[in-house]
Amino acid sequence: MRLNFHQQLDALKAQLMTMAHQVDRSFADSIEAYRTADLDLSQRVIGAEVQINMMEREIDRLAIDLLALEQPTAIDLRFILSIMRINSDLERVGDQSVSIATRVHELRSSRPFDFQVDIPLLASHAREMFTIAMRAFQEGDAELANSVLALDDEVDTMNADAFTSLSKLIADQPELAPQAMNMLIVARNIERVADHATNIAEDVIFWRRGDDIRHGGTH
Amino acid sequence: MRLNFHQQLDALKAQLMTMAHQVDRSFADSIEAYRTADLDLSQRVIGAEVQINMMEREIDRLAIDLLALEQPTAIDLRFILSIMRINSDLERVGDQSVSIATRVHELRSSRPFDFQVDIPLLASHAREMFTIAMRAFQEGDAELANSVLALDDEVDTMNADAFTSLSKLIADQPELAPQAMNMLIVARNIERVADHATNIAEDVIFWRRGDDIRHGGTH
Repeated sequence: MRLNFHQQLDALKAQLMTMAHQVDRSFADSIEAYRTADLDLSQRVIGAEVQINMMEREIDRLAIDLLALEQPTAIDLRFILSIMRINSDLERVGDQSVSIATRVHELRSSRPFDFQVDIPLLASHAREMFTIAMRAFQEGDAELANSVLALDDEVDTMNADAFTSLSKLIADQPELAPQAMNMLIVARNIERVADHATNIAEDVIFWRRGDDIRHGGTH
Repeated sequence: MRLNFHQQLDALKAQLMTMAHQVDRSFADSIEAYRTADLDLSQRVIGAEVQINMMEREIDRLAIDLLALEQPTAIDLRFILSIMRINSDLERVGDQSVSIATRVHELRSSRPFDFQVDIPLLASHAREMFTIAMRAFQEGDAELANSVLALDDEVDTMNADAFTSLSKLIADQPELAPQAMNMLIVARNIERVADHATNIAEDVIFWRRGDDIRHGGTH
């Protein structure tokens, strides 16, 4: 039985949510692997990338087929375009998780030191943004999506603080430079996850309202 | 007089090329500003962002209108989708340039030191990739686009070397840590420009051949 157009849209949405859960799992695992220097867990994150990439390709293919065959307009068109954009952001969150996971190997080869930057706290902020953005997508709630945008500044501020305290750490204990630089990069990976969550929230608003609110625009 | 569909596609393409030139200018300026610690030039890069963002919104709006009104299929559909993706990558190259330009201020407040990493060389590699990718787009040349993909590995290798030599620099001269970390971030900004050039090349191939070649796929 061939699904009708709106059933196909629902199926596409469900697939994107499945991918989002997978990506969220990878991101959480990458942080946990970093926190506990767990090589097995980091390897699992790296291994999951293949599947995430396959999901991205499949969602993209379905979305393009729908555009070509159904030629949707207005809110249906915006919905499919939003899915394509969110799909791309999800895959990039997966990339950031892999980047964090690969850092665990470097971490293991250097001697342990106290964390000067609360990486798990920074990550939990980014993850909260991501979770809210995806719930806003699932529920089609532009107002909820809007609440994500304010949270991004907080992550940026935490990241700027991380830069300052890591610089100070290195000045005081230069032998810790490799670990500190490693941590600086992880902090920036997390900041990018927050950026992707912001993009997703903007796509939800575009889908529901037709507004392009990027860069503070209102048209 | 209303333009016909293919005239509108040509106009959209021309607008994207104009944006690409503007973005290329900003990237080149940001590197020059960093190299010479030129605050005026860095300010120009930061100021140009508003215009780049406006261009992005306008191109996106035109592309979505064309999708909705003309309901293109096959290569025309892929062309418009590619333009939307390239548009997004161009805007992000602009973001990287702004990020580099803002680093110039920090650079000025610290004492000068010899560059351990050849930032201009790294940047010229990334810029070459970007230039070839956009020429491939302009000429609709999938083979030329394909040649960009091989260049990305070189940039990644240079960037990994940068990480190593900056770690060593800090270990030897810890008082240079802030500048070295600054440079590490600039090197990563440049790496991301190269990543965007790769994305653009992949979009050209998708447009011309209908292949989704991301992540080594061939369907």
